[in-house]
Amino acid sequence: MHPYRSHTCGALSREQVGENVRLSGWVHRKRDHGGVLFVDLRDHYGITQIVADSDSPALALLEATRVESVVTIEGVVKARNDATVNANLATGGIEVFAKAATVISAAEELPMPVAGEQEYPEDIRLRYRFLDLRRETLHANIVTRTKIISDMRRRMEGAGFTEYSTPILTASSPEGARDFLVPSRIHAGKFYALPQAPQQYKQLLMVAGFDRYFQIAPCFRDEDPRADRLPGEFYQLDLEMSFVTQEEVWETMEPVIGGVFEAFAQGKPVTPVGQFPRIAYDEAMLKYGSDKPDLRNPLIISDVSHHFTASGFGLFEKIVGSGGVVRAIPAPNTAEKSRKFFDEMNDWARAEGHAGLGYVTRKGGEFGGPIAKNHGTEGMEKLYAELGLGENDGLFFAAGKVEQAAKLAGAARTRVGNLLGLIDEGRYDLCWIVDFPFYEWDEDAKKVEFSHNPFSMPQGGMEALTGQDPLTIKAYQYDLVCNGYEIASGSIRNQSPETMVKAFEIVGLTRDDVEERFGGLYRAFQYGAPPHGGMAAGVDRIVMLLCGAQNLREITLFPMNQRAEDLLMGAPAPAEPKQLRELNIRVVEQPKG
Amino acid sequence: MHPYRSHTCGALSREQVGENVRLSGWVHRKRDHGGVLFVDLRDHYGITQIVADSDSPALALLEATRVESVVTIEGVVKARNDATVNANLATGGIEVFAKAATVISAAEELPMPVAGEQEYPEDIRLRYRFLDLRRETLHANIVTRTKIISDMRRRMEGAGFTEYSTPILTASSPEGARDFLVPSRIHAGKFYALPQAPQQYKQLLMVAGFDRYFQIAPCFRDEDPRADRLPGEFYQLDLEMSFVTQEEVWETMEPVIGGVFEAFAQGKPVTPVGQFPRIAYDEAMLKYGSDKPDLRNPLIISDVSHHFTASGFGLFEKIVGSGGVVRAIPAPNTAEKSRKFFDEMNDWARAEGHAGLGYVTRKGGEFGGPIAKNHGTEGMEKLYAELGLGENDGLFFAAGKVEQAAKLAGAARTRVGNLLGLIDEGRYDLCWIVDFPFYEWDEDAKKVEFSHNPFSMPQGGMEALTGQDPLTIKAYQYDLVCNGYEIASGSIRNQSPETMVKAFEIVGLTRDDVEERFGGLYRAFQYGAPPHGGMAAGVDRIVMLLCGAQNLREITLFPMNQRAEDLLMGAPAPAEPKQLRELNIRVVEQPKG
Repeated sequence: MHPYRSHTCGALSREQVGENVRLSGWVHRKRDHGGVLFVDLRDHYGITQIVADSDSPALALLEATRVESVVTIEGVVKARNDATVNANLATGGIEVFAKAATVISAAEELPMPVAGEQEYPEDIRLRYRFLDLRRETLHANIVTRTKIISDMRRRMEGAGFTEYSTPILTASSPEGARDFLVPSRIHAGKFYALPQAPQQYKQLLMVAGFDRYFQIAPCFRDEDPRADRLPGEFYQLDLEMSFVTQEEVWETMEPVIGGVFEAFAQGKPVTPVGQFPRIAYDEAMLKYGSDKPDLRNPLIISDVSHHFTASGFGLFEKIVGSGGVVRAIPAPNTAEKSRKFFDEMNDWARAEGHAGLGYVTRKGGEFGGPIAKNHGTEGMEKLYAELGLGENDGLFFAAGKVEQAAKLAGAARTRVGNLLGLIDEGRYDLCWIVDFPFYEWDEDAKKVEFSHNPFSMPQGGMEALTGQDPLTIKAYQYDLVCNGYEIASGSIRNQSPETMVKAFEIVGLTRDDVEERFGGLYRAFQYGAPPHGGMAAGVDRIVMLLCGAQNLREITLFPMNQRAEDLLMGAPAPAEPKQLRELNIRVVEQPKG
Repeated sequence: MHPYRSHTCGALSREQVGENVRLSGWVHRKRDHGGVLFVDLRDHYGITQIVADSDSPALALLEATRVESVVTIEGVVKARNDATVNANLATGGIEVFAKAATVISAAEELPMPVAGEQEYPEDIRLRYRFLDLRRETLHANIVTRTKIISDMRRRMEGAGFTEYSTPILTASSPEGARDFLVPSRIHAGKFYALPQAPQQYKQLLMVAGFDRYFQIAPCFRDEDPRADRLPGEFYQLDLEMSFVTQEEVWETMEPVIGGVFEAFAQGKPVTPVGQFPRIAYDEAMLKYGSDKPDLRNPLIISDVSHHFTASGFGLFEKIVGSGGVVRAIPAPNTAEKSRKFFDEMNDWARAEGHAGLGYVTRKGGEFGGPIAKNHGTEGMEKLYAELGLGENDGLFFAAGKVEQAAKLAGAARTRVGNLLGLIDEGRYDLCWIVDFPFYEWDEDAKKVEFSHNPFSMPQGGMEALTGQDPLTIKAYQYDLVCNGYEIASGSIRNQSPETMVKAFEIVGLTRDDVEERFGGLYRAFQYGAPPHGGMAAGVDRIVMLLCGAQNLREITLFPMNQRAEDLLMGAPAPAEPKQLRELNIRVVEQPKG
């Protein structure tokens, strides 16, 4: 017999009753029922109940063994009687009567419990992550994560993609977030950078004649901690295709991402593959007040500016008259809501830094509130008819400059949806957001800037760049959104050196700047570059959505804390003087303070 | 029709004759046959021959287009006549008569050719890697590499392993090679390190209750360039299992690694799975003079010391008398070799820093050379009979202290095998080397040191550590060797905190040292650690063997040069002063010289 186990702790069933078996695992729980000791023995695969009574030579040893010790049990499989069968457990039909037990590794007193799902402070959990990871939910989340990634790989390969690994020690990228730097020992005063994304490499792969690249790619950004991003590293499903249109990227990736969601949604409905709505950025900003709309929220924002060009409600008339807009957010079936409900929405908007959120109440057809009063019943009825609202529906108004009003309307839509319980948590609603603007106006710098990815192809190409107001140019750029989260982003790339230079000139950079900053890519485009495009999906975010986890730490093996420290391994740490000498760097002493 | 292609350049056959098609790709080659232009159009999938004659509106444009430009061709598929069919090409039965052509991306004059396999200087190849990668052999090698890795993953998952990603920003490891350091911005004066291997993390995963971990893991060592290692990063197939014996690791991994070899050996024989020889380290050092024996070499070294305890050849008698050994390396069928062949072997041994390589010649049963003369014919015949050598076999002798003699004998075995053409290049011979010594004598430091992995379990455990001469203790440690290369290495780990401390005490470290240097792991072992073990296989080395490549650069997408520079992306590079300020470091000025 194997020295440690004839079966795992998840393998035994009534089929093995009467067999002599050997199991190894952790002592998960112990229950002493007056001379009969029950031990839940746990390993990666499951839990098996061990029984020892006064007839068992193992009783004394098991009684003396602390939970989370590793033990080997020899015993015989017995059927449980019907009253004690545990239907929640794969092995719940049997138990193992212990004839012998050996402690392989005794556990000290635990700094945190493993059995049960009790909350524990983050620093203890991260310092003793090897205990934390034994806990049921976290263990299951990590296994789900690996299964999701494996499933992604399988689907990508099935779609004709090949996985290529791109370098991790590379050059600093002048755009984007802050890089992690790695001092070079051989080249004094020079540094490598860890990649923020394999963007340039994957484009070079296309220029090198490969087609349908993908990678589960580690990415690195030295950003300040944010609730939805762990410090340090994260993973992207990164992909690129040659000779493609954006529609082909969408048609290729919908079955992959949608397929992963369907496979791991545990029965929750997922937007069917082939039916992901494609929503233009401008439309999304109007109807949802966001380029990351949560389509589970049934509320739709409408522009109602034209109702207020001449209105008894002077404030809206003034806003519309000076080029602003009025956006309306329905609050259906709020006839029974108190005035307080509406006023608190207004208070919330002010607290968020907006001028305020107007509203109209309605109960049995009767309008209420100052806007309705000033605008008049006839005008309100016309507006309601246009929006298809009913006799007991309230309405909120976000007014101001276009961007501000859209943003406020979007936030109000989310808040109203939540407060009225309109959001169906048990669904995954996916959509594409497309036709992003290529440029935007940078109010601080008083100049035109790239909205997102400067490597994207502007719609209309060189003709648009030379003949069109830059702020009206759209890019072949798209996001994939699920339940209000951006889960992927991509574009068709600008692979023409001349169009690339022109695009950068519009934001004030020269050909020399382009050559200096993106030399590798710019040079490559001179030697025959295929049209290409792709996207990158956030693996961590997708796993989080599918696990129903609220925090990235619940789906990550060994996360750093919010201070970017690995408490388990003790990183970062001071370096040896010899190491710093070899790297030709010196630590700058901090002023005491 | 798709704007770029109805088919790839590898798709058309006689089935499509008569169809109108659209193809896009790179102009690989152009041949002008007096008014008829042939263009080989290439993409990732293959090559299709395009034809344009004076009837074709595309002729002028194609004539004017440089090779490696990207073009789109519209045309009609025609069958080639039997005389012009190209059986070497998947599309060789057809050609496409061009009715229209568009240049999508014109190529400048090339710094290096793509068609053909001509040698080119490394710096040009790496600077223009996107062109280099278009070349047939390199392109095929990279595709094979990705297929091998995908196949490894599939086999590992099939064997019940799950892939977990471990952190890349982690703590410096005090043992092993030099780390790459990453300055922390948030913690002034502190540094992360890139992992040399996920060794500690994978062991923590086992302690955390996961089982059968694997990872295609990026690993980083800041070592000086070596012929068989690229600067910077490399990949390991890393794995670990809980509740295992070393035999179980071998039995699990033989089908995985052997299976990969069989799948990619292109018909070459591979040692059958289940039949990998298991050779003890001591036996390998004796019979092959190496712990990385090339079993394709049929020569076996023998210890013949006992023949020389009393010999007319005084030098050997003296060596054996003072505790040294004499090892014999056969040189079969060398009756017709001149004296020069044998003398040059001796010269080679001296040039390698050895005292010399003795020899005996034999022709038709007649011995020759000074050793035979002094030792006597009767003695030589006895020795030949024992070694099973024949009337026309020569014999080399390596004499000296055990380690020196073994090393010389091993090198001589390789050299003789090569010179006599005894090594069958068309095979993959795999074997396990097992029972490595746990400790070795460090002649420089005059103390006992770990031979390989300090985390391995010594055979005999605590009992051996307390009761045995350390230099006689073996470890549960093993290598997998193919054709003379170590392709994997592993061990059963020492998961007992007390045994771990004792093992380190023997090399002069204290419990406090262990806690300080390996705190994460040492602490984890206090809370219930399962017996575990595993190994790590060198992905790059395996790919190189299977591609028949001579250099790691031929199987790596974007390698750095031997000066650890990425010539394409321009890394490493100076950092911005702002970046260094944020990282609290300063570059130390180098003295001019």
